[in-house]
Amino acid sequence: MRCSVVRVPSASPSDVAALRQQVENGGIDPHEVVAVIGKTEGNGCVNDFTRGYAVRVLSDFFAGLAGEAASRISYVMSGGTEGILSPHLTVVSRSEGTGAAKPQSNGKALAIGVAKTPAFLPEQIGRLAQVEQVADAVNRAIREAGIEDKADVHFVQIKCPLLTADDILDAYSRGEAVVTEDTYKSMGYSRGASALGVAVALDEVDRASLEEADICHNWEKYSGVASTSAGSELNYCEVIVFGNSSHAEGPLFIAHDVMKDAIDADALRRLIEQHSDAEIVQVLAKAEADPTGYVRDRRHTMLNDSDINHTRHARAVVGGVLASVCGDPMIYVSGGAEHQGPAGGGPVAVIFRH
Amino acid sequence: MRCSVVRVPSASPSDVAALRQQVENGGIDPHEVVAVIGKTEGNGCVNDFTRGYAVRVLSDFFAGLAGEAASRISYVMSGGTEGILSPHLTVVSRSEGTGAAKPQSNGKALAIGVAKTPAFLPEQIGRLAQVEQVADAVNRAIREAGIEDKADVHFVQIKCPLLTADDILDAYSRGEAVVTEDTYKSMGYSRGASALGVAVALDEVDRASLEEADICHNWEKYSGVASTSAGSELNYCEVIVFGNSSHAEGPLFIAHDVMKDAIDADALRRLIEQHSDAEIVQVLAKAEADPTGYVRDRRHTMLNDSDINHTRHARAVVGGVLASVCGDPMIYVSGGAEHQGPAGGGPVAVIFRH
Amino acid sequence: MRCSVVRVPSASPSDVAALRQQVENGGIDPHEVVAVIGKTEGNGCVNDFTRGYAVRVLSDFFAGLAGEAASRISYVMSGGTEGILSPHLTVVSRSEGTGAAKPQSNGKALAIGVAKTPAFLPEQIGRLAQVEQVADAVNRAIREAGIEDKADVHFVQIKCPLLTADDILDAYSRGEAVVTEDTYKSMGYSRGASALGVAVALDEVDRASLEEADICHNWEKYSGVASTSAGSELNYCEVIVFGNSSHAEGPLFIAHDVMKDAIDADALRRLIEQHSDAEIVQVLAKAEADPTGYVRDRRHTMLNDSDINHTRHARAVVGGVLASVCGDPMIYVSGGAEHQGPAGGGPVAVIFRH
Amino acid sequence: MRCSVVRVPSASPSDVAALRQQVENGGIDPHEVVAVIGKTEGNGCVNDFTRGYAVRVLSDFFAGLAGEAASRISYVMSGGTEGILSPHLTVVSRSEGTGAAKPQSNGKALAIGVAKTPAFLPEQIGRLAQVEQVADAVNRAIREAGIEDKADVHFVQIKCPLLTADDILDAYSRGEAVVTEDTYKSMGYSRGASALGVAVALDEVDRASLEEADICHNWEKYSGVASTSAGSELNYCEVIVFGNSSHAEGPLFIAHDVMKDAIDADALRRLIEQHSDAEIVQVLAKAEADPTGYVRDRRHTMLNDSDINHTRHARAVVGGVLASVCGDPMIYVSGGAEHQGPAGGGPVAVIFRH
Repeated sequence: MRCSVVRVPSASPSDVAALRQQVENGGIDPHEVVAVIGKTEGNGCVNDFTRGYAVRVLSDFFAGLAGEAASRISYVMSGGTEGILSPHLTVVSRSEGTGAAKPQSNGKALAIGVAKTPAFLPEQIGRLAQVEQVADAVNRAIREAGIEDKADVHFVQIKCPLLTADDILDAYSRGEAVVTEDTYKSMGYSRGASALGVAVALDEVDRASLEEADICHNWEKYSGVASTSAGSELNYCEVIVFGNSSHAEGPLFIAHDVMKDAIDADALRRLIEQHSDAEIVQVLAKAEADPTGYVRDRRHTMLNDSDINHTRHARAVVGGVLASVCGDPMIYVSGGAEHQGPAGGGPVAVIFRH
Repeated sequence: MRCSVVRVPSASPSDVAALRQQVENGGIDPHEVVAVIGKTEGNGCVNDFTRGYAVRVLSDFFAGLAGEAASRISYVMSGGTEGILSPHLTVVSRSEGTGAAKPQSNGKALAIGVAKTPAFLPEQIGRLAQVEQVADAVNRAIREAGIEDKADVHFVQIKCPLLTADDILDAYSRGEAVVTEDTYKSMGYSRGASALGVAVALDEVDRASLEEADICHNWEKYSGVASTSAGSELNYCEVIVFGNSSHAEGPLFIAHDVMKDAIDADALRRLIEQHSDAEIVQVLAKAEADPTGYVRDRRHTMLNDSDINHTRHARAVVGGVLASVCGDPMIYVSGGAEHQGPAGGGPVAVIFRH
Repeated sequence: MRCSVVRVPSASPSDVAALRQQVENGGIDPHEVVAVIGKTEGNGCVNDFTRGYAVRVLSDFFAGLAGEAASRISYVMSGGTEGILSPHLTVVSRSEGTGAAKPQSNGKALAIGVAKTPAFLPEQIGRLAQVEQVADAVNRAIREAGIEDKADVHFVQIKCPLLTADDILDAYSRGEAVVTEDTYKSMGYSRGASALGVAVALDEVDRASLEEADICHNWEKYSGVASTSAGSELNYCEVIVFGNSSHAEGPLFIAHDVMKDAIDADALRRLIEQHSDAEIVQVLAKAEADPTGYVRDRRHTMLNDSDINHTRHARAVVGGVLASVCGDPMIYVSGGAEHQGPAGGGPVAVIFRH
Repeated sequence: MRCSVVRVPSASPSDVAALRQQVENGGIDPHEVVAVIGKTEGNGCVNDFTRGYAVRVLSDFFAGLAGEAASRISYVMSGGTEGILSPHLTVVSRSEGTGAAKPQSNGKALAIGVAKTPAFLPEQIGRLAQVEQVADAVNRAIREAGIEDKADVHFVQIKCPLLTADDILDAYSRGEAVVTEDTYKSMGYSRGASALGVAVALDEVDRASLEEADICHNWEKYSGVASTSAGSELNYCEVIVFGNSSHAEGPLFIAHDVMKDAIDADALRRLIEQHSDAEIVQVLAKAEADPTGYVRDRRHTMLNDSDINHTRHARAVVGGVLASVCGDPMIYVSGGAEHQGPAGGGPVAVIFRH
């Protein structure tokens, strides 16, 4: 396997001009694309339709170019480009290898695997049922990626569903209760359950000791590599595993670290310094408002703000901090890091090119 | 003159518990306070009443402790603690000197001067009339501070008025036109005119060549030390000049640099490295959404966002970036940097203690 | 007892100019004021400091005029003047009667009673503990008003606390759980528990059959006269009972009806037609986004909106609808009608003058 | 000509389920559709992509059913369903007549004409160039509708462009100035110029006396039937004229009145009473925050609100008021009524069926 990762800017949720140019230039082969991970300029919350709009436009675009082959592409659109974050697409492709050199001295190169869970009923979202299905899908994606050691998994991107008002009515009509009646809050539960699914799959959290009440409450349990994003445009989970594998080849590899809080610029700085001879292809990170209400012992106001949801604040901060380190605002920063890194912090990964 | 600068956290716009503790501990002498510069947790825009609320509470607090002496205190409340910014007060005091040592090898220490402009009519806001009155007040404050060389001025904080719907009606009722009918936009004009007043006073911009049409249009003309904040709680300008003077004494001094854009962490890093033997007392900075719509050649979405005003985005970013460098979210970052630093950037100053 | 009700506009949360004029004109006697019910121009949600600001200014104002007598005044500030709602104060006074004529043929006139609950711990908010304390306070206020028949109670206004991020931390630090970790949602729980307290006091709901799980879930249980408003400026409940009593005198009386949904203009129209010979002094009503997500079988989007909280939408609608009937935007419409009227609807009361 | 008007609800900007059902039931013939006027659930402001998303989905839908015939369909999506407004589509069709009876005693029936202007450069938006092109297109649409008397025109719906940050840069790069640098404000200028184009075409305003400075300033000049809506999804204007014509047939006709302010329920009530023997097919209206800052001499806070744009407030109010009269929240209410009806008011039209 040989993976490629190409970033293209987008001028709006429906813009594919730069993407088309990359295809025409040969930078992207539509038949090899397995995933598109995007930042779109909606509010990133419940009524963010920029995600679905982008998926619609991209599906049409790739179907027009690659026909049936396009149906396997996973689309993960994360809404919210607060602050300096710049709307863009990260296009991930995979092709047969040719026996080329590996970027790392350990003989491993970037490997990517994708998988989907079954569809969820509204009452399953944010609960152990979701944790288990995600864990299963992550394991399948790891196998598909040819990654043999779970320590070689450095980033697991998941797009997961949320509860709309209609979903909640649907559950009630069948006599079922949902994890929360608050549509915005349901995003957190879905992200949290998905992240714990990653943690279970990667043995970061012991499934046997995990209880439903842990979800979105017990912040001690988390994954250091999960990145989950909720949206109304799907009712199942898309899973994309990024790691390094000795079965993969090419100049790319991935590494990760964990930000301890929203202003922990050192996490990214360490990664860059450790790989100072490599070029950055893309930075991927999670952001959240510290649930304690404090950052470095100073009170923050994100959780009491009824005008701007806290995920929007958090993306603006972490986007700015990471861009100030890597010098580029066209990076992937997604909001709501429940069980993704420690409380208030989150994973940060870098795809490098040697 | 001997100046002191003390920061205290606030739990709400009306909280003075930590302030009271500092007074009781002797950290602040109410009779010596000349200015309180605060960050309050409103939206920082037109209908932000947290600024006026804080001023009301602080005026009562200091009047109760220092009586008539409290009437000279300048209150500059800047709304908006987006992201990790932490609501707090920076209390600036001034006392007679005792001939103590100076912190810098050049024999100068922190000196502070304050002044007020006359009240403005709605039709004067954002126009040359405001530029001129501010320039005059800045010059008076510089003299009051005992600063002899304008190059020793490192930060000029101004609180200036804005136009409300009622102000606009008032102007129209007298047959006068206002600079804009958009109340949010009037904040930018008032900040811009105030900043150009600083630039004129400090010879950064030539008054003779300045035209009304330059205000909020010609971004080539700016001050590298102006920090202006608009609010509905006053109809004149409060001016606070921070600089170093050989007439001042004590362990404090101030230095500044200019951020070239919102993610220019190096500006603050340079300041800290240049004074690596000194301790940071407070960081003061301005933030804005780059008016070109781009940061480092990447499109940002702040100016097209009809849900969150761009000043709110900008504060979240710059607050996060600066806090990631100095390690402390309880810093002063104010939004809307029209003619304060280059377009998209802004001044950053640090008060140090030797 | 003789009650008076006077409305005054406010130009901002700190404006008392029109109030002062009424006092100077003799329209309001500061020594007789028992309650001030206001609409302030904040977001009406968690971080709305306009409520506390107004209470601060009003307390100072009345203390300056009436000294110790002012300490008994209940302040109920309801944030949120979305749409055409106009910020104002409804000043309620009470004096000894003189044996004057009664406005209604039944020989009853407007009577008002006030009471306070003890302070609540964060973990009590939104739970049965709050229901019970409120029921007790309502009964005390009814007695104080001299109302003998509970059918003569037509409006019970309550100001109740909410949970801030700090409150939640406080509960956790003592090992206690709170009803919700979502600060905005805590407002609904506090309003709902308070309304059920009214319903219990007025025998609209049977206390014995009421369970904690009913709060904010079982919408069949509600009061037809409760109006509850949450805010961060207090940690107990203020209760103001409005009714008619044969022990009261004067030209005022009160009547109420129940809006079945947010566009039920007929409820107010009926009240006005039934009392077509009387003049409207003030209209008081509650507004909410129908929790089913539908109004008259048409889907609404208020509950999925992550940019504007649903209480803000609801106030704009109900304010517009009622003002279109009574012709006056300076009315009291408060958002979040949990257990106040049927799901999606709410009580509306009119104070009339004969 | 015979026109039909069918309303269908939409569950999201991309939902065509109810539309498809109408097509399958024969309620809508895709080959006859000339316009789709929708309310989508975005913010209705600059960064509202729900409009473009809906147009994309609808274009695909009709192209799949009607092929080339679908290319003539005008799409007018108006964002913003604040309050009780319910997302939906109004599908307008036109077919050859068969000599059937006319609904009105004057022998006229509903007639609809459509036209497009050329594309505008950013610097033309909100200026006389736009007024003139719109006037020309309105005249063409009137002729196409077979309307002989301009008094028979009762509603002119226009979708017009706005200025994004990129548009403004584009103009500057060519040395051209734009009417405003504020993207949200550009929506008002574009709506205002479009409305004046209608007024000129219908002789409501004299072109010779109209100056560029009148646009969005001189509110005395307006059209009583214009309804204009701005969006980023087009750079020209779509014009749809609704009137009655003796050349048209069928059971439908249209009538209009003018709301004097946002709570003027009587305007719609009069229309319904005048046609009490007819059934309401659809209500179409415009809403705005009174630019004086007052409604019925009471201050409103919509223009000073930096959290929610005033068009959003206005739609919530007018939607609620009109729905309370007609009993149906699935009506078309669009925000921003610059030069559409008197200042603070707006046109309201009803399509009736006899």
